[in-house]
Amino acid sequence: MTDLDELATRLRRLEDESDIARLIASYGPAVDAGDADAAARLWATDGVYAVDGWRMESRADVRAMIASDSHQKLVAKGCCHFLGPCVVTVDGNSAVAVCESLVLIRDGDGYRLWRCTAHHFVLRRAEGGWRIATRTSRVLNGNPDAHALLLRGLAGSA
Amino acid sequence: MTDLDELATRLRRLEDESDIARLIASYGPAVDAGDADAAARLWATDGVYAVDGWRMESRADVRAMIASDSHQKLVAKGCCHFLGPCVVTVDGNSAVAVCESLVLIRDGDGYRLWRCTAHHFVLRRAEGGWRIATRTSRVLNGNPDAHALLLRGLAGSA
Amino acid sequence: MTDLDELATRLRRLEDESDIARLIASYGPAVDAGDADAAARLWATDGVYAVDGWRMESRADVRAMIASDSHQKLVAKGCCHFLGPCVVTVDGNSAVAVCESLVLIRDGDGYRLWRCTAHHFVLRRAEGGWRIATRTSRVLNGNPDAHALLLRGLAGSA
Repeated sequence: MTDLDELATRLRRLEDESDIARLIASYGPAVDAGDADAAARLWATDGVYAVDGWRMESRADVRAMIASDSHQKLVAKGCCHFLGPCVVTVDGNSAVAVCESLVLIRDGDGYRLWRCTAHHFVLRRAEGGWRIATRTSRVLNGNPDAHALLLRGLAGSA
Repeated sequence: MTDLDELATRLRRLEDESDIARLIASYGPAVDAGDADAAARLWATDGVYAVDGWRMESRADVRAMIASDSHQKLVAKGCCHFLGPCVVTVDGNSAVAVCESLVLIRDGDGYRLWRCTAHHFVLRRAEGGWRIATRTSRVLNGNPDAHALLLRGLAGSA
Repeated sequence: MTDLDELATRLRRLEDESDIARLIASYGPAVDAGDADAAARLWATDGVYAVDGWRMESRADVRAMIASDSHQKLVAKGCCHFLGPCVVTVDGNSAVAVCESLVLIRDGDGYRLWRCTAHHFVLRRAEGGWRIATRTSRVLNGNPDAHALLLRGLAGSA
């Protein structure tokens, strides 16, 4: 029955977009709680997290970054990785998403605004749901690479 | 017809998540406009709002907080309660959601970043739609309670 | 078949809300990358962008603002137009959405929080999808017009 199939296809697109938005919205709470496992399992086991000047090549690498003394000190001080609403483009079993983020660090009675960053995600559908295959992040400091990331994300290009 | 029922169930989950995300996204605009009724009716009449060191025990209590001189002075000065995208987990007629927020206060020509906060929501489906049963908020200043809230929220635990 | 029609109607509402949320979430990445075409095409060709003390009367006007030296200097310095999750109300082929935003500008090694703003959108369904008919933005500095915008947006009123 064609109509039912068409509805199912449209519903699946919304479910995929919603699941991916949820995955990305989980990152901030997980890292700000300092939970290395919760944050790392958003990635595929062979997933990549490439930030300015640093490339983590696996879920285990992401886990180690969050479990590190330097990250855990931020958590103990009080930090907030605040990712905005993302734009998601799904194509079968892969997807691209883009958003911006703020990172804030407790400083005296207030907070210091440390970074504004552009994020581009390539995601893959796996058995347990969507996972991050590659996340690329560049600080918004005039770097043209950050601008290119944002535009590739909006275009749904990996 | 099974397929139609299955589609309806899946659609209902997305509608619930969307309605709850909308409810939570309404909080900032309502309190920053200083509209005590609009903000308070996001809660059930017996809903709770527990912030650091202060527990409001009903919709009327939430209404009174927003109508208070101290909140209305913030509104007149210019404030922005900026809640991020939430992670929602629905289970029948109840749900859990988690997000982080920034609060900014007008200060001279710019703004002062006053607080970064973790928020955990328990929601109940009522006749008029979803309402907040309990909202618990803890400032992200290294307090382990804030971290526990974030993780309970991600796990969908009340 | 009534049930199928009802599901299709409910699905369409979610698709519309999702498409509009995506449109609005695209604005920040487009303007922070300095891409005047990508940002301007979120508007209808006769769309309006009314900010404090400045009214752009068309997509071409929005394009010119983003292509201007003053905006491109912000991009080269590093800026972040960070729009929060929006509340969308669809009524047939028109819709209203509301959200708040932060604008951050690179300043030394950190960022300066320049503005917190209320945004009210009127959108129209066009052949290529939803487009902005009118966006009205007022800084949250105690201005009652900003508060009225937020409440009209929550009520779904144009």
